Amino acid sequence: MALYVQKFGGTSVGSLERIEAVADRIARGARGGDQIVVVLSAMAGETNRLLQLAHQVSADPDPRELDMLMSTGEQISISLMAMALQKRGLKAQALLGDQAQVLTDARHGKARIKEVATDKLNGLLAQQVIPIVAGFQGRTNEGELTTLGRGGSDTTAVAIAAALKADECQIYTDVDGVYTTDPRVEPKARKMDAITFEEMMELSSLGAKVLQIRSVEYAGRYNVPLRVLSSFAPGEGTLIMYDQVNGNAPLVSGIAFNRDEASLTLVGVPDEASVAAQILTPISDAGIEVDMIVHTTTVAGKADFTFTVHRNDFSQAKSLLAPVAQRLGAQHVKSDNSLCKVSVVGVGMKNHSGVASRMFQTLGQEGINVQLISTSEIKISVAIAEKYLELAVRSLHSAFNLAADE
Amino acid sequence: MALYVQKFGGTSVGSLERIEAVADRIARGARGGDQIVVVLSAMAGETNRLLQLAHQVSADPDPRELDMLMSTGEQISISLMAMALQKRGLKAQALLGDQAQVLTDARHGKARIKEVATDKLNGLLAQQVIPIVAGFQGRTNEGELTTLGRGGSDTTAVAIAAALKADECQIYTDVDGVYTTDPRVEPKARKMDAITFEEMMELSSLGAKVLQIRSVEYAGRYNVPLRVLSSFAPGEGTLIMYDQVNGNAPLVSGIAFNRDEASLTLVGVPDEASVAAQILTPISDAGIEVDMIVHTTTVAGKADFTFTVHRNDFSQAKSLLAPVAQRLGAQHVKSDNSLCKVSVVGVGMKNHSGVASRMFQTLGQEGINVQLISTSEIKISVAIAEKYLELAVRSLHSAFNLAADE
Repeated sequence: MALYVQKFGGTSVGSLERIEAVADRIARGARGGDQIVVVLSAMAGETNRLLQLAHQVSADPDPRELDMLMSTGEQISISLMAMALQKRGLKAQALLGDQAQVLTDARHGKARIKEVATDKLNGLLAQQVIPIVAGFQGRTNEGELTTLGRGGSDTTAVAIAAALKADECQIYTDVDGVYTTDPRVEPKARKMDAITFEEMMELSSLGAKVLQIRSVEYAGRYNVPLRVLSSFAPGEGTLIMYDQVNGNAPLVSGIAFNRDEASLTLVGVPDEASVAAQILTPISDAGIEVDMIVHTTTVAGKADFTFTVHRNDFSQAKSLLAPVAQRLGAQHVKSDNSLCKVSVVGVGMKNHSGVASRMFQTLGQEGINVQLISTSEIKISVAIAEKYLELAVRSLHSAFNLAADE
Repeated sequence: MALYVQKFGGTSVGSLERIEAVADRIARGARGGDQIVVVLSAMAGETNRLLQLAHQVSADPDPRELDMLMSTGEQISISLMAMALQKRGLKAQALLGDQAQVLTDARHGKARIKEVATDKLNGLLAQQVIPIVAGFQGRTNEGELTTLGRGGSDTTAVAIAAALKADECQIYTDVDGVYTTDPRVEPKARKMDAITFEEMMELSSLGAKVLQIRSVEYAGRYNVPLRVLSSFAPGEGTLIMYDQVNGNAPLVSGIAFNRDEASLTLVGVPDEASVAAQILTPISDAGIEVDMIVHTTTVAGKADFTFTVHRNDFSQAKSLLAPVAQRLGAQHVKSDNSLCKVSVVGVGMKNHSGVASRMFQTLGQEGINVQLISTSEIKISVAIAEKYLELAVRSLHSAFNLAADE
């Protein structure tokens, strides 16, 4: 008898028909002898409806009150699901975050789970009751209601799976698994049967937005096998865990990308350690996220300092930089707001420099100029002109033999 | 500095515009130096929307899960109200039933409040924070979410007012007070400035559906002055309390009525004490509510036994009665399903038989035949043919001088 935590996202419970379909799926599993804990998001559209209400009342609603409002979305979907399961003759109980003993810190709108106690959930499972838990929400020790931020239902599911030592945490969504790259860009993209936590972290942070990154991190930390699969289509989805299932990890698992990047370069600043902080402090103080950072010594005592931001933040970053450039005596500020970032990811590349050379060779053959490079243990990212995005993704996908076997 | 509990019903918070208007009203009171605790219902329409969702999923939804679903309505209105008050520069906090320490028994869908602890509410008031409490809901000692049944927000408000020893519990609604009778029937009906709890109990149970009867009972028991007033119009509304404000109570305060009554009479049953139980037990076992009951001895050892039910229950009651009539040897069953009930109510009539005689005289002058009579300490009710309802109400309203002074 296996214990599964099954999380269904907003589109999976987006209408009463879909709730019934999900109830059928849960019922099949339960009748097959599995123990199941269900975690739900709000019905698709509900979160936006509530946000809109809040913003009609206040341009800047208080995060505490916003949590109170937003958390009703999951409360509605769990009650309806419990009714749908009961109609099928199963025992089920809807549980609010605090009833499922999800304890969080007090950061409204972006709370973190501190603990999930298991006596309530285990008690229900022992009585053959299927707990239907509201994702995305919890309470503090003081009884304040909190939410985990968008996509937080994944985190709820993983935290509960970790606490219950579940056999798997299954994330049902509208895609049937994790792909080697975005199939809309490369139709030959292949669904992976398995992938490691590290690879998934790099892939999800780079734009393959299947799972919320925090939940992957959490699953990795507590070693909860995580499976992404479709609520609508059959199939085994993609299993995310520590060990590659088949032992011989491919060099590269997937190609990720981010559109809408922009770069800023201060040319000819002093080649000193303090320069980076002087440049980046006003940027981060303004809440702008910096992605890639490159520092190159040019002539003696002088350097070029380049970083990338999201294109939405480009203008603001540029004006923040002007006084800094002057103070540092930079020759000028170079900028480019038509970039994208393409990354190859794979645990197999850890000790294999060949990946980098094959990547640059492939891009060079296509005439794609690499503007910036940044690397991690299992990832190499390049910033290139955005017009080359599709070409780069497709040629790398092919160069690393990621396409489906057939 | 006065402490008021102010409850706003569903129509009062039925749109964002109305929420803003109510926020203005609360803000005026708070800036005027009053301490205010707000209790809200769900936005008008929301409760029906949720009920409809439930019934689309299940013909017979579990009361526990239904409570979980329905209680989201109030959660939405309180968060929006808190935001609206904060926008006005006031400190406010939305509180769920359990956060406001509303403890109930476990009867889902019709729970009763067992206790309201006051440390949370008093703590907020001491910090000049306006608590915005979700009406209609609470939790049990075991952490199960419950609702008090329709109209339960009034009860929440009164229970909180009692616990806090508030100066007044103010129920804001879409009428501007309690009237001597329904103004749609008698345009001369007058809004009363004050009325006693007993009178209000009789009036609300008889059809002047301004306040939920349980909340009036509760207010009377804990001696919480209750004021009904309009969210939309200015005015002092009607104060409900133990002592008549002006000392000399009028004989009759108001005329109440119920449409859609039906009567059933078993003619010629044995004149024995056990007969009533034999007749009424199958009726009440079927969940049918019996209103007036009259038992008249006719010839020696024989009696006629009459009772009234709502017209919707008439057919069922009639068929339930057939075997009973046969067993009791009744001559026949007489029935009338075109009745109504008209009542005169007033604490002043307690020791004044003149009220009854004036009532019958008035009805007699209009040629209205009285079919049944039932009396309590402060009320005389008659069943008459429904076609006479308006005529009876108007002539009694006039006979007891209830019209406005001008």
